[in-house]
Amino acid sequence: VDQDRALDLLAGARVARLGSIAPDGRPHLVPVTFALAVRGPGPVIAVLYTAVDAKPKSTRQLRRLDNIRRDERVAVLADHYSEDWAQLWWVRADGAAAELPASDEQDTALRLLAQRYPQYRAQPPPGPVIAIGITRLTGWAASPAGRDPD
Amino acid sequence: VDQDRALDLLAGARVARLGSIAPDGRPHLVPVTFALAVRGPGPVIAVLYTAVDAKPKSTRQLRRLDNIRRDERVAVLADHYSEDWAQLWWVRADGAAAELPASDEQDTALRLLAQRYPQYRAQPPPGPVIAIGITRLTGWAASPAGRDPD
Repeated sequence: VDQDRALDLLAGARVARLGSIAPDGRPHLVPVTFALAVRGPGPVIAVLYTAVDAKPKSTRQLRRLDNIRRDERVAVLADHYSEDWAQLWWVRADGAAAELPASDEQDTALRLLAQRYPQYRAQPPPGPVIAIGITRLTGWAASPAGRDPD
Repeated sequence: VDQDRALDLLAGARVARLGSIAPDGRPHLVPVTFALAVRGPGPVIAVLYTAVDAKPKSTRQLRRLDNIRRDERVAVLADHYSEDWAQLWWVRADGAAAELPASDEQDTALRLLAQRYPQYRAQPPPGPVIAIGITRLTGWAASPAGRDPD
């Protein structure tokens, strides 16, 4: 699929998986909810925001933060599975991740997340927000047009 | 969730995401179908088999193979998303991946995959089979019991 279609598919997904690199070089994967802000011309195609909503007391849950502090390079994958394999598609976003400081951008990110997820309107995420500047979008669909998940 | 529960959840998932390390150190993610063979006592909890069913002419689709030849360390993530966040769960399997040579194990892997996916019975996967020896299983569920996806 082309980049515009990949962006549409990613924007429509309710969950994605964040891949980062652990200190020992292993890949680390965790599912994330997210919101996208599309950017104008330039190397950053879009910014993906995801909030850490893990229990703050649990250090294990914060491995993604430790990882991106050491190596900002991440990949995010959204995919659609169906028993009808003609409906399969996936989109991978490569980019650089950073934890947002308290800022206007953080406020915007939290607002975008609350707009997408009623669950966040009931209970805003406690954790920091990660911003990922997407510089590459690749995707694949079994059928030429792909299809949004229901 | 404990290891037995994590294994049950993984075994019930229809799709997972394979994370490997690209030559430049970036994380690389791709969705995979898979079958599990549970192992007895020992460091390997289970072996996850996944077949490459990409078009053989497309070298891009084989990046996962290049990656595991350079660095066998992979992570596999299965997760369940629901708008009812009390139903969320995920399982991550860490292990070592290798491409299987033509062998009894490859035959077994292809049989297990065909048992799980009618699509593979109609059309066996053309590509090589990757075997991942899972040495660590971690998981999380929003509700104590977790729940299988429907």
